[in-house]
Amino acid sequence: MKAEIITIGDEILIGHTTDTNSAWMANKLNLIGVDIIRITSISDKKEEVIKAIDNVSENADVVLMTGGLGPTNDDITKESLADYFGVKLVLNEAVLRHIEQFVIKRKAFMNDRNIKQAYLPENCEIIHNKIGTAAGMLFHMNNKILISMPGVPYEMKEMITSEIIPLLSKQQKGNEIIHKAILTQGAPESKLAELLEDWESNIPKHISLAYLPSPGIVKLRLTARGSKKALLNEQINKQVQELQALIPNLICGFDADRLEEIVGNLLKAKKMTLSTAESCTGGTIAKLITSIPGSSEYFTGGIVAYTNNIKSKILAVSKRNIEDYGAVSKQVVEEMAVRVRDLYKSNYSVATSGIAGPSGGTKDKPVGTTWIAVANESTVISKKFILGDQRERNIQRASVTALNMLQKLLLNKEI
Amino acid sequence: MKAEIITIGDEILIGHTTDTNSAWMANKLNLIGVDIIRITSISDKKEEVIKAIDNVSENADVVLMTGGLGPTNDDITKESLADYFGVKLVLNEAVLRHIEQFVIKRKAFMNDRNIKQAYLPENCEIIHNKIGTAAGMLFHMNNKILISMPGVPYEMKEMITSEIIPLLSKQQKGNEIIHKAILTQGAPESKLAELLEDWESNIPKHISLAYLPSPGIVKLRLTARGSKKALLNEQINKQVQELQALIPNLICGFDADRLEEIVGNLLKAKKMTLSTAESCTGGTIAKLITSIPGSSEYFTGGIVAYTNNIKSKILAVSKRNIEDYGAVSKQVVEEMAVRVRDLYKSNYSVATSGIAGPSGGTKDKPVGTTWIAVANESTVISKKFILGDQRERNIQRASVTALNMLQKLLLNKEI
Repeated sequence: MKAEIITIGDEILIGHTTDTNSAWMANKLNLIGVDIIRITSISDKKEEVIKAIDNVSENADVVLMTGGLGPTNDDITKESLADYFGVKLVLNEAVLRHIEQFVIKRKAFMNDRNIKQAYLPENCEIIHNKIGTAAGMLFHMNNKILISMPGVPYEMKEMITSEIIPLLSKQQKGNEIIHKAILTQGAPESKLAELLEDWESNIPKHISLAYLPSPGIVKLRLTARGSKKALLNEQINKQVQELQALIPNLICGFDADRLEEIVGNLLKAKKMTLSTAESCTGGTIAKLITSIPGSSEYFTGGIVAYTNNIKSKILAVSKRNIEDYGAVSKQVVEEMAVRVRDLYKSNYSVATSGIAGPSGGTKDKPVGTTWIAVANESTVISKKFILGDQRERNIQRASVTALNMLQKLLLNKEI
Repeated sequence: MKAEIITIGDEILIGHTTDTNSAWMANKLNLIGVDIIRITSISDKKEEVIKAIDNVSENADVVLMTGGLGPTNDDITKESLADYFGVKLVLNEAVLRHIEQFVIKRKAFMNDRNIKQAYLPENCEIIHNKIGTAAGMLFHMNNKILISMPGVPYEMKEMITSEIIPLLSKQQKGNEIIHKAILTQGAPESKLAELLEDWESNIPKHISLAYLPSPGIVKLRLTARGSKKALLNEQINKQVQELQALIPNLICGFDADRLEEIVGNLLKAKKMTLSTAESCTGGTIAKLITSIPGSSEYFTGGIVAYTNNIKSKILAVSKRNIEDYGAVSKQVVEEMAVRVRDLYKSNYSVATSGIAGPSGGTKDKPVGTTWIAVANESTVISKKFILGDQRERNIQRASVTALNMLQKLLLNKEI
């Protein structure tokens, strides 16, 4: 099954809002075998909505639209769809009652804008919005299905998960799609491509490979298409085994999108705890770890020590070491890791000290110089990295690299 | 001037990568008066690239493409463009030398893939890529300009900033565009729309208004188009003054996109320092603050106290208070703010304690219950918020709300 995504809203075209909905939808739909063939973002003007529908590829079986269903005057999707299909907006009593309940729960009063949200094109099937006031809509046009959803990410996500995925899954038969992601850390894309050249040229035609780089990680994604799920799984696993033999030290995970989740699962399995001492990453490692639900089970907490004074005062890093070697040094980062582990009574710890930039670099220690340490009860291991000159990217890469060092320590792998 | 953006890459269509390039470009181009009329993301297949170019709106003066210029086999943009224009790829000596220098600097050796990057369509003008090996390309087609750039965000950003913006600015004459963003905090979009209904209906026709909600903040963006910059500025300022009179307590900033920057600038101006004590936000406030270059000038650091034990041990929050009132309470969050300020010897501090979810809620304190405190030398102020049931959103909203409370304290405004 093929689908197009159309996101509606000036906030995207003027660059206020990054369209994160499309990637999320694409990812979920891919897993049930729906290929996204195009994503289009358009202005919230009636004629643009109509033009975009006219412009949908003949190959698309489903069109997923988000946005423009809110209560304000720049929300024009319903009117546009009514115009496109040549129908009227009519009051839907069930939707009105749902909105009323919603407003009452929030201890507010119904206003005209709330009521307006219950008027919907008369030819649509309602898709229930459990957690918001903007109803979803389903239209049939020729051999396609057109679905309109709210643009608010958590409302859209709930609607996709509980309504759209079950609906589309039913219509998918015999078109199986299997993905397998292999996360690598430690080699840039071009180096990796060179290492894998021979392997890549021997992958069967129905399996495709994509290199998906992000700061600190290059993900390899294998996608197999066919009719027999078990066979596809077997074929993909064979490729993964070959990869494991080729680049054992570069692979840092599979599928699970995020290292913070992998590390969290390892800690949970071992019933062990973790703490962090961050300088250059400024809380990003703690933020990543605590973004995982249930992280309070294994994360005791952390220290952000942004000044030398705090490093010595709170973390008790020796002032002598800071003076002799500088804050960005093996000595200091190892002390940070050891001290925070002690202070927070955790089994594991991770520490960072570096120059994120844009200023603060010296000839000996240019912007990007970063020391990372990991520790457990028996060892502390540190490594130096020369990252780039982009602050945001340096912070991200240092955080991901730190999580990977931690993973290796948890797995007793060479760091 | 009108532009379309086309982003190329399966990584976007399969949902691995969120297309952040488009929003960034749109924002930058808007500021020089270039309107983005459509953003399209397509697969990295030759026929899709060609179809997308064929499909460009007649109204577009510029087409900006990103992606598909890397060294691996799934990078097909150059070949597609050569096909589209019916020309060959030829070796560009200048680009080859640039790539060589780049590879040498990285202490690596030239390989076939590096050399391949120096082959470019013979009809293109080269756009220099200072910080990477993939050259940009400019093509003339009928009355349009087509520009192809790398998809790697920091390379694209450098190219836009130092090459494309100067080039397009030259061609923009007499079409002025002025934006003014007003950040609000404390009222949801529909409530805000109600408050502003009369004002909104009296805005002159050449000024448009957009509501741009994100977790914790609703941004109002006014856009004026015309030929005289000074006049447009005057007209926009008049609207802003009216808004300030209407919703003085809801406005938390202008233009500068992020509260962490506003707070940082206030601290810098006062030569004051800040520290953080985070429970439910898990380091996100520290991460936000340290994302701003130069934040080491005013941010001493913070504590992530994820367990009660750490709250009492590191922050010296009274065990009695934790037992009597619970960790998510006025008493505990105020103690956290006071203690961290003391411990980190900072002028200001901010603290959070809440139940981010999905688990951990009780009948009395459901998921989303969050206490936030801010303190300076003379006062500590705390407030309770009932946020939602989405973990990620709760963390984000609590962090933004905390930064806004801090701003109000810095400005001696009522919290």
